[in-house]
Amino acid sequence: MSEIGSAGPVVGLVMGSDSDWPVMEAAAAVLEEFGVAFKADVVSAHRMPTEMIDYGRSAADRGLRVIIAGAGGAAHLPGMLASVTVLPVIGVPVPLKHLDGMDSLLSIVQMPGGIPVATVSIAGAKNAGLLAVRMLGAGDGAEATRLREALSAYASELRDQAHAKGEKLRHQF
Amino acid sequence: MSEIGSAGPVVGLVMGSDSDWPVMEAAAAVLEEFGVAFKADVVSAHRMPTEMIDYGRSAADRGLRVIIAGAGGAAHLPGMLASVTVLPVIGVPVPLKHLDGMDSLLSIVQMPGGIPVATVSIAGAKNAGLLAVRMLGAGDGAEATRLREALSAYASELRDQAHAKGEKLRHQF
Amino acid sequence: MSEIGSAGPVVGLVMGSDSDWPVMEAAAAVLEEFGVAFKADVVSAHRMPTEMIDYGRSAADRGLRVIIAGAGGAAHLPGMLASVTVLPVIGVPVPLKHLDGMDSLLSIVQMPGGIPVATVSIAGAKNAGLLAVRMLGAGDGAEATRLREALSAYASELRDQAHAKGEKLRHQF
Amino acid sequence: MSEIGSAGPVVGLVMGSDSDWPVMEAAAAVLEEFGVAFKADVVSAHRMPTEMIDYGRSAADRGLRVIIAGAGGAAHLPGMLASVTVLPVIGVPVPLKHLDGMDSLLSIVQMPGGIPVATVSIAGAKNAGLLAVRMLGAGDGAEATRLREALSAYASELRDQAHAKGEKLRHQF
Amino acid sequence: MSEIGSAGPVVGLVMGSDSDWPVMEAAAAVLEEFGVAFKADVVSAHRMPTEMIDYGRSAADRGLRVIIAGAGGAAHLPGMLASVTVLPVIGVPVPLKHLDGMDSLLSIVQMPGGIPVATVSIAGAKNAGLLAVRMLGAGDGAEATRLREALSAYASELRDQAHAKGEKLRHQF
Amino acid sequence: MSEIGSAGPVVGLVMGSDSDWPVMEAAAAVLEEFGVAFKADVVSAHRMPTEMIDYGRSAADRGLRVIIAGAGGAAHLPGMLASVTVLPVIGVPVPLKHLDGMDSLLSIVQMPGGIPVATVSIAGAKNAGLLAVRMLGAGDGAEATRLREALSAYASELRDQAHAKGEKLRHQF
Amino acid sequence: MSEIGSAGPVVGLVMGSDSDWPVMEAAAAVLEEFGVAFKADVVSAHRMPTEMIDYGRSAADRGLRVIIAGAGGAAHLPGMLASVTVLPVIGVPVPLKHLDGMDSLLSIVQMPGGIPVATVSIAGAKNAGLLAVRMLGAGDGAEATRLREALSAYASELRDQAHAKGEKLRHQF
Amino acid sequence: MSEIGSAGPVVGLVMGSDSDWPVMEAAAAVLEEFGVAFKADVVSAHRMPTEMIDYGRSAADRGLRVIIAGAGGAAHLPGMLASVTVLPVIGVPVPLKHLDGMDSLLSIVQMPGGIPVATVSIAGAKNAGLLAVRMLGAGDGAEATRLREALSAYASELRDQAHAKGEKLRHQF
Repeated sequence: MSEIGSAGPVVGLVMGSDSDWPVMEAAAAVLEEFGVAFKADVVSAHRMPTEMIDYGRSAADRGLRVIIAGAGGAAHLPGMLASVTVLPVIGVPVPLKHLDGMDSLLSIVQMPGGIPVATVSIAGAKNAGLLAVRMLGAGDGAEATRLREALSAYASELRDQAHAKGEKLRHQF
Repeated sequence: MSEIGSAGPVVGLVMGSDSDWPVMEAAAAVLEEFGVAFKADVVSAHRMPTEMIDYGRSAADRGLRVIIAGAGGAAHLPGMLASVTVLPVIGVPVPLKHLDGMDSLLSIVQMPGGIPVATVSIAGAKNAGLLAVRMLGAGDGAEATRLREALSAYASELRDQAHAKGEKLRHQF
Repeated sequence: MSEIGSAGPVVGLVMGSDSDWPVMEAAAAVLEEFGVAFKADVVSAHRMPTEMIDYGRSAADRGLRVIIAGAGGAAHLPGMLASVTVLPVIGVPVPLKHLDGMDSLLSIVQMPGGIPVATVSIAGAKNAGLLAVRMLGAGDGAEATRLREALSAYASELRDQAHAKGEKLRHQF
Repeated sequence: MSEIGSAGPVVGLVMGSDSDWPVMEAAAAVLEEFGVAFKADVVSAHRMPTEMIDYGRSAADRGLRVIIAGAGGAAHLPGMLASVTVLPVIGVPVPLKHLDGMDSLLSIVQMPGGIPVATVSIAGAKNAGLLAVRMLGAGDGAEATRLREALSAYASELRDQAHAKGEKLRHQF
Repeated sequence: MSEIGSAGPVVGLVMGSDSDWPVMEAAAAVLEEFGVAFKADVVSAHRMPTEMIDYGRSAADRGLRVIIAGAGGAAHLPGMLASVTVLPVIGVPVPLKHLDGMDSLLSIVQMPGGIPVATVSIAGAKNAGLLAVRMLGAGDGAEATRLREALSAYASELRDQAHAKGEKLRHQF
Repeated sequence: MSEIGSAGPVVGLVMGSDSDWPVMEAAAAVLEEFGVAFKADVVSAHRMPTEMIDYGRSAADRGLRVIIAGAGGAAHLPGMLASVTVLPVIGVPVPLKHLDGMDSLLSIVQMPGGIPVATVSIAGAKNAGLLAVRMLGAGDGAEATRLREALSAYASELRDQAHAKGEKLRHQF
Repeated sequence: MSEIGSAGPVVGLVMGSDSDWPVMEAAAAVLEEFGVAFKADVVSAHRMPTEMIDYGRSAADRGLRVIIAGAGGAAHLPGMLASVTVLPVIGVPVPLKHLDGMDSLLSIVQMPGGIPVATVSIAGAKNAGLLAVRMLGAGDGAEATRLREALSAYASELRDQAHAKGEKLRHQF
Repeated sequence: MSEIGSAGPVVGLVMGSDSDWPVMEAAAAVLEEFGVAFKADVVSAHRMPTEMIDYGRSAADRGLRVIIAGAGGAAHLPGMLASVTVLPVIGVPVPLKHLDGMDSLLSIVQMPGGIPVATVSIAGAKNAGLLAVRMLGAGDGAEATRLREALSAYASELRDQAHAKGEKLRHQF
C-alpha cells in the first residue's frame, strides 16, 4: 500500500502540552489507520513562542500539508500557527478543568477575518484526524484517490456498525 | 493567470436560505479574489433534504473539492453534507435573530466522531473562503503553488495594512 | 385491554446510537406502561443518512403516528426526520460528555420556521414518551379515550405520590 | 373544504400577555392557513392563576385537542397548563427585553418528569402552529388525512421556494 | 425565650419534591437555630396544582408570614405561590442533574413585573432561612427585636469565625 | 389614609450611580403607589465605601425596615449592604452595556451562606418595590393589614387587566 | 510637574486593529490625565506575528514598564505578548459584533499557568489605564509617590461625584 | 540573596475563607519561589467588612505593594479592596460548587470604570502570584532587576520543560 507521506510526515500534530495527549491521541490513531504519515510534537504558543513561530513558518517547506493543533483554555496555538503558515490548520479545543471546553472552543473558533482555523468539536481530535484525511484526499493523484476510497469505506463501516446496533436494539422488544 | 477550477467549479458554496447570502457573500468574494471557481446555491437540509443529499453525494464526481456550507439556528446543513461526501466541508455559523449565533455554532461544530465539519467563526464566511483556498493550496501542482503564493501575498498585505494603521495611530500622539 | 397499535407499532423510538439507550429507555418504559406499541431502532442522521430519510419518508405509511428521536451534540436526527415526514417528531436532547446537553438542546429546539420539532428537556425521554401518549390521546375513538383516562390516572398517581412525600416530610418536625 | 374544528375550536392559543401577540400571531396565521379552528386568549399563570387552571382543566371537555401557550422570562404558563390537562401542550418561548429568550426557553423546556411540554424555538410560534397541525393530522379520519396532505403540500411549497431562491442565486454568477 | 410563631408556624417551607430536601434542610436548620416556627411540606406546582394554589391562597390566614419555596429545572413553584399570596415568597433554585441550577435560577428569578420572588443563590437554602428571619425581624415588637439581635449576634459569630480562620492561616507562614 | 413611614422613610432605595435611575425609578413608583415612605440615594460600594458601610450600619436605627439596592456589572452594593445590616436587602441587577445583566445577576444572587440578598429579575425594580411592600405587609398592625389589602387589590387589578386584554384578543377572531 | 516617562514612554498601549481604538482610547485618556507617558500602536498577533513578538521581546529594554493590549474575538494579543516579556501585561477584552465580548474575555483571561494576563472588564480600557497607573505607583521613588497621591485624589473625586449625584437624586423627592 | 520585602511583606495574599486556601496556596508557592515576602490572611468582604476596609486602607502604609485577593460566587473581596486602596489588586476567581467559577469570574472582572481589578483565570492563583512578581519587577532598583531576571529564568525553564515533553512525545512514533 502506498502511503501519503512516504517521503516524510505530511501532517503536523501538535499540542500545547503533553497533558493534551490523552485527548489528541485520537487524531494520531486516525492518521495511522488511514496510512497518513504524521509527526506529533509539543509546541506551546506561550512557553516557546519563537519555536512555535518557526514551526509554523517552516511547516510547508518541511513537507507538511496540514497542521492539527490542540490547545485548552485561552487556546492560542491553532490561531497563532495559522498566522504564520499558509497551510490549513485544524484546531481542537481541549477541555480543561473549568468551563468544560467552552473557553477553548471560543478561543480557537472566533478568529478574526484573514486567518482561518478549521475548528472541530470540544475534544474532537478524532474528527480532526478525519478532516486532515479529507483535505489530503481532496486533491489529485493516486494517493488522494486512495484516501477518498478509504474514507468511503470508513463511512460504510460506520453505517454498518449503526445497522448492527439497531439490529441489536430491535431484538430487545 | 491559470485558474483553479478552469474546468468547472471546485468549491461548492451553499446555504440553507438566500437570507444567509449577506453573510455568505464574503466567502464568494474571497474565492473570486483568489481565482478559485465556485458555484453558489441554496441547498436546504430541512426544506429539500433529498436534493441536499444528492448534492453532497455527487459533489466529488462533479469536480468539487471543497464544500462551504452556511446555516443558522439548528444548523444541520454542514453536518448533513459532511455525512454524504468524503470532501472536506467548511461550516459557517450564520447568526439569526436570537442567541447571536451561539446555537448555530454549537449545531455545526459539535459533530459526533466520524463526521468532521471544519467550523469557522460566527458569520466568518470570509475565513471559510480563505480556508478553502488553503485546502486547495495544500496539494501538489502548479495551481496549488500559485494559491500558496497568493496566500503568502495576502498575509503580507494584511501585515502591511496593520503597519499602516499603526503608523496612523502613532501619529496621533 | 385494547392497545393502541395492536396492528403494529404507532410510535417510532429512534436514536443516533445505542449509547443513547440509557437515556432513551425511559421513553420505552412509559410507552409500555400506557400500552402503546412502539418500535425502537438506531437511526443515525450522520452515519446512515439514506436510511434515516427512508425511515422518515415511510413512517406514516408504516403506521407510525409519532416519532420520538433522541440525539446528542450537534443533534440533527430529530430535525432531519421532521423534514421528511408530516408526523409530529419529538426531540430528546441527549447530554454528551461536554456542555451538559446545552448543545444538544439548541441543535434540536432551534429549528427554522416550517419544520417543527417538539423538544423536551435535556435527557427528558420519560416526558417524550408521555408527550407521545398525549398526542395519541388527543384524537377521537375508544383508544384515545383510554389513553386520556390513563393519563388522568397517571396524573392522580403523581399527585398522590407527592402527597405521600409531603406527609412523610411533615412528620419529621 | 371541510374544516377541523367546524364544531368549535380545537386549538387553544394562549399567551401570558397581549404583548406576546406580535410573536404569537404567526401561530394563528398557520392555523388559519391550514383551516384549523382555534381560539386565541390571554391566560396568565401569574395574573389569573385560577382562570388559568380552569382553562386547562376544562380544555378537553370544551373540545380542544391541542394547546399552544406562549410566555416569556420565568415562563410558567405552558408547564402549568400541562399540569392540569391531558392534552398535548406546545410551549413557545417568547423573548423579552433581556437574555434574548434563553430564560424563556429553559423555563419552558426543562419540565420535570411526568409533565411534558412540547417546546419549539425561541419566538417559534409559526412552528408551534405547524406542530399542532401535525398532531391533529396524526390521527384517523378524513380530516386528519386532509391535514397530512396539506402538510405534504406545504413541504413541497417550501422545497419549491428554496429551489427558486437557489435558482436566483446561481444566476448571480 | 419567647418564640416567633409560638401560636403556630410563621414560615412555610415547601419544595416540589422530597428529593429537594437535602438542599432545603439548611433552611429548616436556620429557622430552628433562630427559634422561628415553620412547617415543611411537599407542594408541587406540577403534580398537585390545586393544592399548591390552595396552599398559597390560605397561607396568610393560616398565620404564615413568609414562604420559602425550593424547586429545580423549570422551577415554577415559587412564582406560582407568589401569584396567589400577598406574603413575601423566597425562591431557592435547586440544581438538578443538568445545567447546574442555571435553569432553576432563571425560572425563579426572571418573574414578570407584578409578582416578585425573592431569589437566593443556587442551592442557597441557608440564606433563604436567614432572609426569612431578616423579614420577620424587620417589623415592630419584642419578637422582631429579638430576631434582629440574634441576627447581629449571628453576624458577629461569622466575623469571629473568619478571624479565627485567618489567625490559623497567618500561623502557617 | 395612614401611611407606612409617616414618621420617616421605611425603605431605603439606593443605587451605585444615578445612571441606574432609569431602571430603579420603577421601584420608587411602586412605593409611592402603595403609600410607603422611602428615600432614594446614590450609595456606591466602590466609589464611597465608607459611606456605604455607614449607610447600612445605621439603616435600622434610622427607621429603615427594608433596603432596595440596584447595581450593575460586578454589582457589589446589595451584598455589601447586606453584610452590614440585619435588615432584608433586595437586590436589583441593573443591565449594563455588555452581557445583558447576566454579570449583574450573578454578582448579586450568588451570595455566600450567611449573608442573603433577595434578588429580583434583571432590571426588575418594579418587583423590588412590590417585594418591599410584601415584606412590610407581612407583619402585625393596621399598616401591615392595609398593605396586604392593597396588595390584594393590586393583584385583582392585574387579573382584570389580563382579562380585558384577553377580551380584546378574543374579539380579533 | 515631573512626569513618569519623561525619558520616554513607560506604557505600551497596543491593539490588534485600529478598529479597537474607539474602545481603547479611554486608556490613553487616563494615562494622559495621570501624566504617564505612553505610546499607542497597532500590533496584531495574527497579522504581524513577528513584529508582535519583537515588540514584546524588546519592550523592557525600550523602557516600557507596563503593556496594555486590547483585542477581540479569539483575542490572542495580550497572552502572546505576556509570553515574550516579563513586564506585566494588561488585557482589555474588546467586544466584537457577536457574543458581546464573552469570547474576547475568555480568550484573554483563561491563560495557562505560567503566563499571566491582568484582565479587566469587557471594553474596560479606562480601568486598564488606571491599573497601569496603580502598577507604576506601587514602586519606590518620587514619581510613584506622585501617582499614588494622584490616585487618592482621583478616588476622592469619584466619591465627590457620587455624593453630588446622590444629592441631586435626594432632591427629587 | 537579597529579598523583596526583607523589611516586611510586600504582597498581601487574602481570601474570603480558609476554604479558598487549596486554590490560593499556588500563589503563595510562587511568591516563595521568587523570594517575595508576603502575608496570607482571611479577609472576608461579607463577614468582616470593617476589617476588610481597614485592611485595604492601611495596606500601602503597612508596606504592601500588591494585593492578591481570591473569592468565589458573588465574589466582592477583590473589588471592594480595590475601592479602598491605590495599590494594584489582583483578583482570583475561586470556583465554588455550582457554575464552575463563571459567577466568580464575572463578579471580579466586570468592575465599573474607576476601580480596576487585575483578574486572572478561574482558579488561577499561580498566575496571580506571577503577576504580582511581574508588577514588582517592573520598577527600578536591584530587586526589580533580580525579579525580572528570575522571571526570564522561569520562562526559560517553562520552555525547556515544554521541549522535554515534546522530545518524549516525538519518541513515541
